[in-house]
Amino acid sequence: MGMQLEVNTMVVTKGNEERIGENLFKLEKTGYRIYPLDIEIELRKTKEGETSGMVIPRKVVWENDVTLLTYELVSLNSSN
Amino acid sequence: MGMQLEVNTMVVTKGNEERIGENLFKLEKTGYRIYPLDIEIELRKTKEGETSGMVIPRKVVWENDVTLLTYELVSLNSSN
Amino acid sequence: MGMQLEVNTMVVTKGNEERIGENLFKLEKTGYRIYPLDIEIELRKTKEGETSGMVIPRKVVWENDVTLLTYELVSLNSSN
Amino acid sequence: MGMQLEVNTMVVTKGNEERIGENLFKLEKTGYRIYPLDIEIELRKTKEGETSGMVIPRKVVWENDVTLLTYELVSLNSSN
Repeated sequence: MGMQLEVNTMVVTKGNEERIGENLFKLEKTGYRIYPLDIEIELRKTKEGETSGMVIPRKVVWENDVTLLTYELVSLNSSN
Repeated sequence: MGMQLEVNTMVVTKGNEERIGENLFKLEKTGYRIYPLDIEIELRKTKEGETSGMVIPRKVVWENDVTLLTYELVSLNSSN
Repeated sequence: MGMQLEVNTMVVTKGNEERIGENLFKLEKTGYRIYPLDIEIELRKTKEGETSGMVIPRKVVWENDVTLLTYELVSLNSSN
Repeated sequence: MGMQLEVNTMVVTKGNEERIGENLFKLEKTGYRIYPLDIEIELRKTKEGETSGMVIPRKVVWENDVTLLTYELVSLNSSN
């Protein structure tokens, strides 16, 4: 009788992000996930990889056991 | 450095729901709220009122400090 | 990079509760679970079974992938 | 009919932490808060201040609208 959730403290793209505006990106993830809305968190390409920048989650959609995240890119690491 | 959330164990419409399909309704609520997706919960018109039926939350959208809930009406109390 | 959580809208004891006060019970559950604190929810012996009463979760402890819930029994169904 | 929660992506001590073991600290915070258990997050003295180290939340207790967090100090910034 429970809803499974995952609390995420960073955005891990695995290269699956899609650009939808100048600094705006969409990313689909399996399951229902909480991203801290309107709070700056780390962006990574892989879970164990280096931080590639900072983002602010702006919108979360939960449906059919999928999370659709929209995030704003705030800064990009120069080394990337 | 935190995201405010409210965990909801029932849907309270206050008469603000909008029918968008045969058994499908949309409801906008202030703030970011967790409704247990795909799990049957109570429907009420007011927080302290009687149960008016049972619903299953099917979709949640969080954006700009608003929650847009889509729920399926499963059963309606005959007395209503 | 995520913490797995389960949002619970009722307390399912499976007979594992332990009485620790007149109306107070302890229940250990696997994984990290959210119970709505200080809000009245259903008590059941099994997930698919009948409601056996109403309880109010009063304390939640998360540690080592286990949830220790303390709840107050508010009412018991007479048929039980 | 909701439980207020705050999702925290870092630990902000405001100097209120209490050492309870070699690398273990206790911190009391108002309200019910989610810290990602068993996941490394930032430690700060103030919300807007610099990162003073990295910690892993190991235990969370929710009761009487208070959160009692136990965290493990993993690394301390040398500049602090």
